[in-house]
Formats: sequence, C-alpha cells, structure tokens
Amino acid sequence: MTNTERPTALDLPQVDPLPPETQRYFDICVEKLGMVPNVLRAYAFDIDKLNTFTALYNDLMLGESQLTKLEREMIAVVVSAQNRCFYCLVAHGQAVRALSGDPVLGERLVMNYRTAGLDPRTRAMLDFAVKLTDRPAEVEEPDRAALRAAGFSDRDIWDIASVAGFFNMTNRVAAASEMQPNAEYHGLNR
Amino acid sequence: MTNTERPTALDLPQVDPLPPETQRYFDICVEKLGMVPNVLRAYAFDIDKLNTFTALYNDLMLGESQLTKLEREMIAVVVSAQNRCFYCLVAHGQAVRALSGDPVLGERLVMNYRTAGLDPRTRAMLDFAVKLTDRPAEVEEPDRAALRAAGFSDRDIWDIASVAGFFNMTNRVAAASEMQPNAEYHGLNR
Amino acid sequence: MTNTERPTALDLPQVDPLPPETQRYFDICVEKLGMVPNVLRAYAFDIDKLNTFTALYNDLMLGESQLTKLEREMIAVVVSAQNRCFYCLVAHGQAVRALSGDPVLGERLVMNYRTAGLDPRTRAMLDFAVKLTDRPAEVEEPDRAALRAAGFSDRDIWDIASVAGFFNMTNRVAAASEMQPNAEYHGLNR
Amino acid sequence: MTNTERPTALDLPQVDPLPPETQRYFDICVEKLGMVPNVLRAYAFDIDKLNTFTALYNDLMLGESQLTKLEREMIAVVVSAQNRCFYCLVAHGQAVRALSGDPVLGERLVMNYRTAGLDPRTRAMLDFAVKLTDRPAEVEEPDRAALRAAGFSDRDIWDIASVAGFFNMTNRVAAASEMQPNAEYHGLNR
Amino acid sequence: MTNTERPTALDLPQVDPLPPETQRYFDICVEKLGMVPNVLRAYAFDIDKLNTFTALYNDLMLGESQLTKLEREMIAVVVSAQNRCFYCLVAHGQAVRALSGDPVLGERLVMNYRTAGLDPRTRAMLDFAVKLTDRPAEVEEPDRAALRAAGFSDRDIWDIASVAGFFNMTNRVAAASEMQPNAEYHGLNR
Amino acid sequence: MTNTERPTALDLPQVDPLPPETQRYFDICVEKLGMVPNVLRAYAFDIDKLNTFTALYNDLMLGESQLTKLEREMIAVVVSAQNRCFYCLVAHGQAVRALSGDPVLGERLVMNYRTAGLDPRTRAMLDFAVKLTDRPAEVEEPDRAALRAAGFSDRDIWDIASVAGFFNMTNRVAAASEMQPNAEYHGLNR
Repeated sequence: MTNTERPTALDLPQVDPLPPETQRYFDICVEKLGMVPNVLRAYAFDIDKLNTFTALYNDLMLGESQLTKLEREMIAVVVSAQNRCFYCLVAHGQAVRALSGDPVLGERLVMNYRTAGLDPRTRAMLDFAVKLTDRPAEVEEPDRAALRAAGFSDRDIWDIASVAGFFNMTNRVAAASEMQPNAEYHGLNR
Repeated sequence: MTNTERPTALDLPQVDPLPPETQRYFDICVEKLGMVPNVLRAYAFDIDKLNTFTALYNDLMLGESQLTKLEREMIAVVVSAQNRCFYCLVAHGQAVRALSGDPVLGERLVMNYRTAGLDPRTRAMLDFAVKLTDRPAEVEEPDRAALRAAGFSDRDIWDIASVAGFFNMTNRVAAASEMQPNAEYHGLNR
Repeated sequence: MTNTERPTALDLPQVDPLPPETQRYFDICVEKLGMVPNVLRAYAFDIDKLNTFTALYNDLMLGESQLTKLEREMIAVVVSAQNRCFYCLVAHGQAVRALSGDPVLGERLVMNYRTAGLDPRTRAMLDFAVKLTDRPAEVEEPDRAALRAAGFSDRDIWDIASVAGFFNMTNRVAAASEMQPNAEYHGLNR
Repeated sequence: MTNTERPTALDLPQVDPLPPETQRYFDICVEKLGMVPNVLRAYAFDIDKLNTFTALYNDLMLGESQLTKLEREMIAVVVSAQNRCFYCLVAHGQAVRALSGDPVLGERLVMNYRTAGLDPRTRAMLDFAVKLTDRPAEVEEPDRAALRAAGFSDRDIWDIASVAGFFNMTNRVAAASEMQPNAEYHGLNR
Repeated sequence: MTNTERPTALDLPQVDPLPPETQRYFDICVEKLGMVPNVLRAYAFDIDKLNTFTALYNDLMLGESQLTKLEREMIAVVVSAQNRCFYCLVAHGQAVRALSGDPVLGERLVMNYRTAGLDPRTRAMLDFAVKLTDRPAEVEEPDRAALRAAGFSDRDIWDIASVAGFFNMTNRVAAASEMQPNAEYHGLNR
Repeated sequence: MTNTERPTALDLPQVDPLPPETQRYFDICVEKLGMVPNVLRAYAFDIDKLNTFTALYNDLMLGESQLTKLEREMIAVVVSAQNRCFYCLVAHGQAVRALSGDPVLGERLVMNYRTAGLDPRTRAMLDFAVKLTDRPAEVEEPDRAALRAAGFSDRDIWDIASVAGFFNMTNRVAAASEMQPNAEYHGLNR
C-alpha cells in the first residue's frame, strides 16, 4: 500500500507556517472532523488556490440550495463511482453514510447506484448526474424535462449540474495527483 | 437555430440591478472583449456563485503559473473537444486563435489535436489532459513520469490537471444548461 | 504544424504531366474554388483511382437526389465529427457555411450537432447518419421507420446511407494518409 | 428468417429491363459465380450508381496492387467483423475460404482475427485496418511506420487504407438497407 | 495457423491414464460426436475440475428447463459473439446449425443476431443475454419485465441468465488459454 | 431501499423442507459465518443447481491451488468492480478485508485497484483478470507471457482465468436476478 505523509504523489509542500486564518480553518477541521481532509492539505501549497477551492466547495456543498446536503453528497458519490475516484468515493461515501444514517446506501452508491431502490425523484437526479458525467454531449432538453417532471426547478437543475460538474473536476485533480484520503474515513459510520 | 436572449436553457434571470462591482466587471468585459461572455451572464443569477466561479477561472487561466496562457487555452480546447462542448470550443477555440496567431491551430485542436504536429512537450501535456478526461481512473505514476520527462515540474502537473479538471466541470455545466456562446466569437481571429 | 507541399504523409507523387482531361478538371477547380482540393491531388498518383473517386463523389454529392446539397454536406460534417477527421471537417464544414450562409451552423455541426436546434426532419437524418457511423450493427427497421416518419422516401434513405457511408470511407483514407486540407478553407464564409 | 425476393429492406426496384451492358455483366456473374451478388441487384435501381460502385469495387479488389486478392479479402472480412456486417461477412468470408483454400481461416477472420496465428506482415496489415475502423482519429505516423517495418510501401499503405475504407462504406450501406447476401455463399468452400 | 496437438496454449497435460469413468465419457463423445471436444481435453489435467465443469455444463445445456436446447445454444452463440470467442462460436455455432437444421441461422447469430428476423420471444431472450453480457450493471427490473411480457417465467429468466453467465465464464477461460476448437466442427451442418 | 425476504427479485422459492445434507450445509454456514449467504439461498430452489454451483465455487475458491485464498478473492473483487456487481463486491470485498486484515485494501479493490500500490506480481494478476473481463477477445500470448514473467506457472494462469471467468458468470446471474447480499457483510472487518 502507498503509505506516505504527503497527501498526493506530487512534491508540493504545504506553506509553512500556514497563515493564521488557514491555520484556524484547519484547527476547526480537526475539532469537528477529527482530521484535516487531505484535499485541503493538498491545496495548501498555495493559499489562494486553497481559498478559491474551498469557496467553491462550500458554496456548492454547504451553501443555500433546495437540494439537501445528502442529495448533494449522493451526486458526489455516483459521479465519483463513474470515474472510479478513490479519494472522493472514500470521503463522500462516508458523508452519505453519515448524513443518511444508512451505511448500506453508501455502499450501494459506491458500487452501483441502480441497485439502491431509490425513489423516482432521487433516481432521476442521479441518472442526470451520471449521463452528464459519461455522455455530456448527449444531454439535451428531454433530460432537463425529466428532471422538471420529477419535481426539480430550473435552479435545482443548475445545482445538480454544478455539483456533478464539480466532482468531475475534483475526481480528475485527485486522479492526476494520486490524492490519498485520510485513513479515518474508512471506519466511520459503518 | 436556438436564438434567444437567455444565455442558457434555464430560466434563471440575472440579478437586477447588478451590484456595482459586478456591473463594473461586466463593463470592463465589454470594453476589452466587446461583450460580456455568456458564462458570466449565466452565473449572474447569484452573485456569490458568479464570484466563486470567476475567482477560480481567473486563478487557473490568468494567474501565476509556468504554463503559458496559450498552453492553458490549448488544454481547455482539447478537453472540450473530448466532451464535445459547444460553448467552450467556441470561446476557447477563439482564445487559441488569438493567443497563437494561428487560426489553423485553433481548428486542429477543436477537430483532432493529434493532427496538429505539436512539439513533444505540448503533445505530452495534451495527451495527459485527454487521458485524464477520458479515463481518469487509469492515470498513474507513468503518466506523471511522462510529463516530467517532457520537462514539466510537479507544480506544472498540478496546473495541467487543474485546468483539465476545470473544463471537465464547465463543459458539464454548459451541457446541462445548454449554454450559448456569444455570437461574436465565431468570426474573430480567422 | 505540419507544413509540407505533399497533400498526405505518403510518398505518392502526382502523375506528371497530368493527362489533359485531368489537367482541365484541376484548372476548373482553381477557377471555381481558387484551389485544387488536396483530396484530388492525393488521388492523382493514379488517374484511374482519381476518376473512380471523383465519379462516386460527384454522383453522391452533386448528382440527382431529393436531398439538397446542403443536407448532403451536413451529413458529411456530422459523420466526420464522429470520426474526428480533420480534412473532411475543414473542407465540408466550409461547404456547410457556404451553402447555408450560416457560419454558426457549420461550427455547431463540427462541434456537436445536437446543439444546432435543427428541425425534426434534419435531426432525424443526422441521427440516422450518426448511429450508422457509430453503431452500424444496431441499425434496424425502427431506424428506417423513423426516417420515413420524418418524411423521407426509401430512395432518400439509400442516399442518406450512401453519403454517410462515403464519408466513413474518406474519413479513413484521410486519417490513414494524414491528408491535409487546403489552407484556403479556413477563412472562407466565416 | 427474413426471406424475401428483394435484396434489401428498401423498396427500390431494379431498372427493368436492364441496359444491355448491365444485363451482360449480370449474365457473366451467373456464369462465373452461379449468382448475381445481391449488392449488384441492390444498386441496380440506378445504373449510374451501379456503375460507379462496381468501378470502385473492381479497382480496389481486382485492380493492380501489390496486395494479393486474398490480402484484400482478409481486410474486407476483419473490417466487416468489427462492424458486424452480415452481408459482407458472408460474401467476403466465402471469398477468403475460396482464395486461401482454408475454411478455418475464413472462420477465424469472421470470429476473431487475433486467433488466426497470422504471420507478422499479415497481422500488421489487419491491425492497421482494425484500428482505422475502430479509432480512425488515433491513426498517426507510428501506425504507418509499423506497416513500413512489416514490409509495406507507401502505395501499399494507400491500398490497405482504401480497402479498409471501402468496407467501412459498404458495411454501412448494407446495414442501413438490411442487404441480404445470396444464400449460395453459405455452403461454398467449407 | 496455430496447429498443435494441445487443446490450449497452456502446458497442462491430460491425466494419463484417464480414470476409467472419464475414459468411458470420452469414448462416448467419440462415438456420438466423432471427437472429444477440446474443452473436455483442456480440463482433463485435473479430473475434479473436469467433473465440476461437465456437471455445470450438463445441468445448464442438457438438463430440465423450459428453454429448448436450441434456445440455450442460441444464447451461447450470441454471448460468444459479443465476446468474440473463437472456440465457443465454432462449437456452439455448429450446435445451432444442427439443432435448428438452418445453417444460415447459425451464421446470423455468429455475425449479427439482429439480422436474423427472430420472433419477438426469441429476440427478447437474446437482447437480454446481450445486455447482460455487455452492460450487466444496467440490467434492472424493466429488463426482467420485458422477458415476462414475452412469455418467460421467473424460472426461465434464471435459466437465461445462467446460460448467458456460463458462456461469459467459458468465453474467458477459452480466451485466456487460447483454446482451439476441434477441426471437425467447421464442416458440419453447412 | 429494496428490503425483502427473498434473496433475489425472482419468485423462486427455496425447496421446503431442504434435503438433510443441504440443511446441514446451511447450518454450518450459520455456525461459521453467522448467516447463509444469499447466493446459496437463491440457488436453493433446485438442489442440483445448488450443488453444481457450490462444487464449482468450492473447487475454485477453496480448492488446491498455488494462488492463495486472498489472491482469489482479490480477483473476485476486481472482476466484480469492472462489472459493478453489488452482491459480489459486498460479499467478496468483506472476504478481502477479512483475509488480508487490511480494510483499506478491500476498499481500494472495490473502488479502483490501480490505487492499491500492489506488488508487481499481484498487479500483473489483476491486470490480466481485468483485461480478460473487459476485452477478452484481445487476450493473447503476450498477456500470458506477462503473467509468466511475474512468476506465474501455466497452472496458475488457468486458475486466474478460471476465477476471473467464474465471477464474470456470477456477476451476471446476480445482476439478472437482483441478488441481495446479506446485511451482515457490510459491517464486518472495517
């Protein structure tokens, strides 16, 4: 097993010392999550990049939206499953387990979301995210119509697309850099 | 042809009036580019989302990096070609034409970058971006080693991955929302 | 950029001198188009091959058919886009721009024909051509029925298939030989 | 089983009576092959189309070339196997059996040419034809270099590409029209 | 052509002498089929493995089921066609020719089952087997519903899946070991 | 979530009462594993089918072989990951966690085995299993040579292929029948 201190396979050391605001942010992570997620440590070679990344992450995953946090995490997992991104499957699989209180749901989304017996609204949302991931050029008006028929507004469609798009970005940054998830995720919420 | 005033197929009207700082930014766009790029108009239904998007865009495409702006735009185009994203091919194909002064290069990258007779360094960069787009799960150490052999540093690899990842995000937001490029792009730098 | 006098990467020099009839044909090309298309120069190493090629080309693209010349060129472009054939996209993308008077239509067909807001008849025609290109083994009676429902006759279906088939041939001859489109095409009808 | 008199699923009746020259050609087919191949009957709704098709076929498959007739038929079969074209596999599978005197070779090329224990030259030729069929956009100089290393000239490369391209055309015309091979082929040269 | 005495490319010699019961089984094969199928010779390096394989084969292909033996062989051929397994296409293509008395049907299933003009029940069965082969993760309740609508019971669905699954196993054992079909198959039932 | 007593979506009730030998086998399962694996309950509608299945399973996964039990389970997981088989990933992912004592290894093989930092021998074994799963028609002598170079014997190659083939079968039976893994697996060995 790869087992290094570095969060990625790239030699990009963290700014040292971290600026006070970043250090406070990392301290809060430790306090709340028991760790600094490695994706943050990976970006911390450049504080501006870290800040733009966390601003986008926080807006999409924690910000105001009609999508619940669990729904956003479910999109994160199915997109990452299509792309087979180890980092994101571990981190966001845990988030699905935690937010849903259903460890099996987390496994199903990682392994094959079609087996999860989802309600039609959730299934429509994830089918859209998966098609957008695998065949973006073929997404057209009928795909949006299917979301509207399942009860989603145009703003919801934007949010679904934005979260699915975001993980198509981070899956690739993680793959390119061989980003390692924190070991703590594996055992949580099983 | 779809020919609407809205920048996307989604009913997400722009904040009206725009906050003064956003209005100034849009005015500068008109002054410098002759238009407000529709991607900015699309995000302007929520100024926080617009600002996080532009912060990331500006960091990746205009910020400090050993990759030239042309190199970053070349990555944008080949990623968008794999995903067949109309918006990004039009906008960033124009950017390649403008920055390179070579209209045929822009066409080659849109149509099939393998025909472009690229120098080995550029070819290695674009091969990495294309593999990362099409088969992210198969990117491994030998792929990074190929970039290092072509003269790229670990920081460069991060930047290549980040730009490739970013367009894998925006291609999908554009596809999901049927984002329309400004008509002005088509005729420029031919 | 590859920038050679030869129309392909193969060392197959043109018959010299050309037979009078061929020379006249090439002279007419220069007069009408401002150039001898490189595909003709490529075949001119063997006048019989040149003549059988041009006979087929002229029959399919210029001969009597219920398909308009623009419709045939649209098929040429979407087939060549699936196959990512640089030569054919450049030459027939220009033809679409010229025949339609709509430069954006040419771009849309090159980049992603699904974004072109096509009328149902044209869309059915191009969907058939794309499926025939990508998954010929799966074309069956319902595919023909869809064309008939869109108003096409059995003769039209033959013509659509023949044009789509022809570009599946020429795309591959162009790819195998690295055929270079004439530089003149790029700037025309923008 | 579909079992009709028409050579295709399209209602395109043969010119009646056939022009004398065409009738003579068909009579020669019956005399030499015991049948008029259905592809000729299919094109005979338009004698000009029939003639341009047969001219190209005869040039490529029977004309002067350093490729043997068997080599050209082998290309026909492996291309048609990739495209799963029933008409061409039946007709050209029989041709391989007849020309090689090796019924098993015909079966191997239909089913999986990689199992045929081919000499390196033949294997290189068929690998090129298969890549050109499946991934034409990825054919580049190293692919041509592999053919040259296997002993092929630039003219041979043109001929391999032309035959492979031709069957990528006819496979699609046959698929689109549901062209039926003559029953006689099945039992020959087993 | 590969032309060896060994049934596979692996050096796994048959137990010598065979146990009496195995020898009797092989003698019966020669008596009834004119040969010992090479798949049995391949497994005969380990009699327990041979016996577990033949027990499963006999249960699935010869045992009690509402699927006819021809239907099971048709599944065998279309699965093997998707996987391009030379051994299984030769052996089970012959079985389809023998059981159906229709040599052309055998060829159609080998080459492209969609051209075989099958009745809706048989087509539904083979479509299910092909989807299960190519995209098992996407098989869901509507796929089972389509089989039930075509007249199949839940037990029939189990049997279809088991036969399709079995050939997905044997295709891979044959491919991995380069298993050679007995020459006798080729000429039978043409 | 689907949450039924039946082990599959098919209405195939277990033989009732079970024959004494089967009942004893199931009792041993409960004693040793704490459950009767649902795959056994699924096959128990027909005791002969159950017995042929378990005979093959036991021979391949528990029988004499130079491959360790962990190696066989690793093959099971990577094959099932390619096919996205929920049942097999849950059951055999747990087996990898148990046999290796390394929960993260189990996760890595489920999510993307390329990230697992495997030694070259194990990697070669799994690369072969994955290629055999995804592109069986392209497995040839060089693939076997790579296994031999990694230290595997011809018998080992047979065993790798047999295990990989077996899970290509069971993945499809599980997918076709929507087989549900026992809930107990999820929490074990985390």
